[in-house]
Amino acid sequence: MRYSKFFGKTTKDELKDTKFMSHYYLQKGGFIAESVAGRYFFLPLGWRVHEKIRQIIKEEMDAAGALEMMSPVLHPLELWEETNRTSSAGFELMKVADRRGANFALGGTAEEMFVDVVRNFQLSYRDLPFNLYQFSTKFRDELRARGGLLRVREFVMKDAYSFHVDEADFQEEYQKMADTYRRIFRRLDLETVMVEADNGYIGGEYCHEFQVESALGEGRFFAAADGSYLAHEDVAQFFKEDKNSQDDEQPYQQVPAVRGTTMTDGAELHQLPLWQQLKNVLYKNEQGEFILAVIRGDFDVNEVKLLHLTKSHQLTAATEEEIRELGSEPGFIFAGGLEDKVTVVVDDSIHTIKNAYTGANQKHLDSLNVNYPRDFTAHLEGDIAMAAAGFLTQDSHQPLEEKFGIEVANIFQLGHHYSRLMHHATFTDQNGDQVPFYMGCYGIGLGRTMAAIAEKHHDEHGIIWPTAVAPFAVHLITLGGDQAMAEKLYQQLTEAGVEVLWDDRDETAGVKFATADLIGNPVRLVISSRTGDQIEWKERSASNSELLTPAAVLAKLTK
Amino acid sequence: MRYSKFFGKTTKDELKDTKFMSHYYLQKGGFIAESVAGRYFFLPLGWRVHEKIRQIIKEEMDAAGALEMMSPVLHPLELWEETNRTSSAGFELMKVADRRGANFALGGTAEEMFVDVVRNFQLSYRDLPFNLYQFSTKFRDELRARGGLLRVREFVMKDAYSFHVDEADFQEEYQKMADTYRRIFRRLDLETVMVEADNGYIGGEYCHEFQVESALGEGRFFAAADGSYLAHEDVAQFFKEDKNSQDDEQPYQQVPAVRGTTMTDGAELHQLPLWQQLKNVLYKNEQGEFILAVIRGDFDVNEVKLLHLTKSHQLTAATEEEIRELGSEPGFIFAGGLEDKVTVVVDDSIHTIKNAYTGANQKHLDSLNVNYPRDFTAHLEGDIAMAAAGFLTQDSHQPLEEKFGIEVANIFQLGHHYSRLMHHATFTDQNGDQVPFYMGCYGIGLGRTMAAIAEKHHDEHGIIWPTAVAPFAVHLITLGGDQAMAEKLYQQLTEAGVEVLWDDRDETAGVKFATADLIGNPVRLVISSRTGDQIEWKERSASNSELLTPAAVLAKLTK
Repeated sequence: MRYSKFFGKTTKDELKDTKFMSHYYLQKGGFIAESVAGRYFFLPLGWRVHEKIRQIIKEEMDAAGALEMMSPVLHPLELWEETNRTSSAGFELMKVADRRGANFALGGTAEEMFVDVVRNFQLSYRDLPFNLYQFSTKFRDELRARGGLLRVREFVMKDAYSFHVDEADFQEEYQKMADTYRRIFRRLDLETVMVEADNGYIGGEYCHEFQVESALGEGRFFAAADGSYLAHEDVAQFFKEDKNSQDDEQPYQQVPAVRGTTMTDGAELHQLPLWQQLKNVLYKNEQGEFILAVIRGDFDVNEVKLLHLTKSHQLTAATEEEIRELGSEPGFIFAGGLEDKVTVVVDDSIHTIKNAYTGANQKHLDSLNVNYPRDFTAHLEGDIAMAAAGFLTQDSHQPLEEKFGIEVANIFQLGHHYSRLMHHATFTDQNGDQVPFYMGCYGIGLGRTMAAIAEKHHDEHGIIWPTAVAPFAVHLITLGGDQAMAEKLYQQLTEAGVEVLWDDRDETAGVKFATADLIGNPVRLVISSRTGDQIEWKERSASNSELLTPAAVLAKLTK
Repeated sequence: MRYSKFFGKTTKDELKDTKFMSHYYLQKGGFIAESVAGRYFFLPLGWRVHEKIRQIIKEEMDAAGALEMMSPVLHPLELWEETNRTSSAGFELMKVADRRGANFALGGTAEEMFVDVVRNFQLSYRDLPFNLYQFSTKFRDELRARGGLLRVREFVMKDAYSFHVDEADFQEEYQKMADTYRRIFRRLDLETVMVEADNGYIGGEYCHEFQVESALGEGRFFAAADGSYLAHEDVAQFFKEDKNSQDDEQPYQQVPAVRGTTMTDGAELHQLPLWQQLKNVLYKNEQGEFILAVIRGDFDVNEVKLLHLTKSHQLTAATEEEIRELGSEPGFIFAGGLEDKVTVVVDDSIHTIKNAYTGANQKHLDSLNVNYPRDFTAHLEGDIAMAAAGFLTQDSHQPLEEKFGIEVANIFQLGHHYSRLMHHATFTDQNGDQVPFYMGCYGIGLGRTMAAIAEKHHDEHGIIWPTAVAPFAVHLITLGGDQAMAEKLYQQLTEAGVEVLWDDRDETAGVKFATADLIGNPVRLVISSRTGDQIEWKERSASNSELLTPAAVLAKLTK
């Protein structure tokens, strides 16, 4: 390809976003161009990378026995109503009506669509299992787009949906997909970690994210030093060490407490450790119900865990006014006595302490020697605690490290979530009974993967693409020199199937070298008046160069 | 691929649509499944065909020097406002707003988007020409979907947009694209003709459609027997032979005319030829303006030509009431006297006749010896006539044949249409001036092409796919027989890159043979107890079969 007539050349515009180097280089290098915020054109250079990523994913999915197909982009809204997802908070669904009044969702994920097409075939256990995938544009009505391709409103996702007779069969596929993803990212030269994560609006019981570690990533997760435990902050569990659970329970008492409303104020007033204090956080869910989370004072409430435990869709902090209307007082909340008005949820760390202190539902009045369940009752008990750096893993008590990452892929157990919510999503089993499909789903975001590669593979001059996804294998620069030799080399390489971007413009050496470094193809070849009948070979990732004969260049590139 | 675990098997359901055999077989064969009317899933079998078509198009577009890229699916609506297309009648644009209130069109065609991305680079004549293309989902809010993949509301289109310094440069590309399309359809084994057509909502001055002749096609066009002239009915021109233009003009007169309101009634009453009668058709455009088309009685009005000549977006027939309100009478309209109230448009065939007869704007009153422009004036004069079978070509006076076709592709001259309507859509020319791009665009509908192939390549048992786009090269059937041989052959073929669909189900020979014929892979191989250590080879397009050794089969398929 001759760069002179190539569309989407490097731009001299100074770009605002220099925090995310992937965004900076992809835009400056002519890989992408913004349409409106969060929506990008992939220019010819960027599309070549995108499509190489697609091809690698496709090869590995096919090798794993998955079947590529394609669903419509517009999903009949009634399918999303079958699964109660049109109103699920947190999912940024775009809706559109056609002129005949039919309502559609712009596909953001396609569980309902795939269940719908599968249930229309009357299948038996003999037809199972299978794993169906597609590469299709997904839409997310994000409030904030961020970091170029890292968080967008429109992107190509490889999404796959597998159908099984039972959990055991599904688990084989889940493992196979995890292995397949590891192979894919290895081919893409992208180091990922597989992190336990939250199922969110997808449903199901467990899932894993593939995270590319990056200080700029939006995903926060915790890892044991030896890698034996990796979990997103939403679900990370940790060892809640015993404090004084063996102590005798002292008599409950109330004491005057002229103090501020923070946890520190309480600890200072009573001169007791923070862990012995109860932290009480009052929420309201999307139904208007009040939920009081009670947790050890040295822990924070994990709202995602709380959401799941209470089966809520959305939680917002209660206002001071609401707290007072319930007969309590901000900063002095105590579950005892509120049990009829709110759902009390207690973290299981409650069992590690005795004789706790906290408020007493009146201003400047505190409770001492609070013991559970003697002094208050809970409607729900479970893990609602947020992990933190330094906390210990549950199993081997190793300290957790806090990490940030770019989530490039995920795999979900769906179980019977969709096949039970949707009618007739069943197959005939060996006994002739209709049984719901056991399902999983598996996604990879292509644009974000591309950005993550650029984020991990660049230097101060530009991107250094891994060979497998580089837009071109060779960046040929001519600066005067033997034109006939250049023409011949270009033709020989092209005929041998080596992709060459030939910078044949009438530009200076400085401009051409900078362009080559910015674009980041793996091998740069220079033919100039100085190279004589030889060619300068330099790899983008190396600092040294060497002079080779055309035959040697050809041999190296076609070996 | 083992058919037992393949998703999207043939269905026994009896389908309603048996008029379009492509629809019938594609659905029954498990290639596609309807989501809602006009929106289809491509099942794994169908997607394999779709993607082979895509790959052939891509190879030929790349060979022609075009650059693949990708635009967002959601187009900022303000771009469509720049070109006045949000209100163009006849174009079924779907619109959607995001939650921040930004408005978008669901891409139906992408001229504005490509101009938008190009104008954001400051280009000079040195960067031109280039041709940018994409494969992306397009949306059309059609009132009626029809014939399976033949007319849908959502489909993948290859659309390309070329940018040039001037018309001469564009015309080279237009020719190159026409040649490229011919090569593509030749590789797809799809006979097409290139037909002059109407630009419609796309804009520009001329275009051509690639039509696959089919009695079921929606496109009606006319062809000279020798193929020298091919034009869609919307634009087809023909020779308007002289009738009596050399006659002397007789004095205009009005005569009582107790007759019905049809053309035949007039001809019978006056015992004069139909061609000598004037046909007057009154329309109202989208602005509420009345347009009176006047044409020779043996011709019909071509509303598309009339739209263009009058620069209207939409024409509807005036009601009887409206005709009377204008001071005329249904069946007795005469342009003379109405010129102040309506736009009179006269077909150029008016010059081929003298002493015409027609109505006189009163019930039961006719005009005789009407001569133009003596007895009425026209605001516009031009070709507004509809061609018909048997009419003669303009140049060589050959009779036109009427044909019907499936439009699978089109190429459009856009000229400066978009680059003048959109701001700053210019490049710097050799003199340093800002000059608008000269443009063309080029589309192929992939699903419709796939349906057209099935429509042209089938028999009473199913589809007979051309090898280039067949989902699999080989359909292997085992019916007992040597399982080890079958396994080995399957493995050898797969390793050699030959795509095999292996019907390994526990079904009867009848079911398996019918499945193979319905799906239509080019070669059927049978291993059964009867074939011994040999394999039955039968081509889908042939009726005879032969027994070959495994080695011979392997050799034939990998040669």
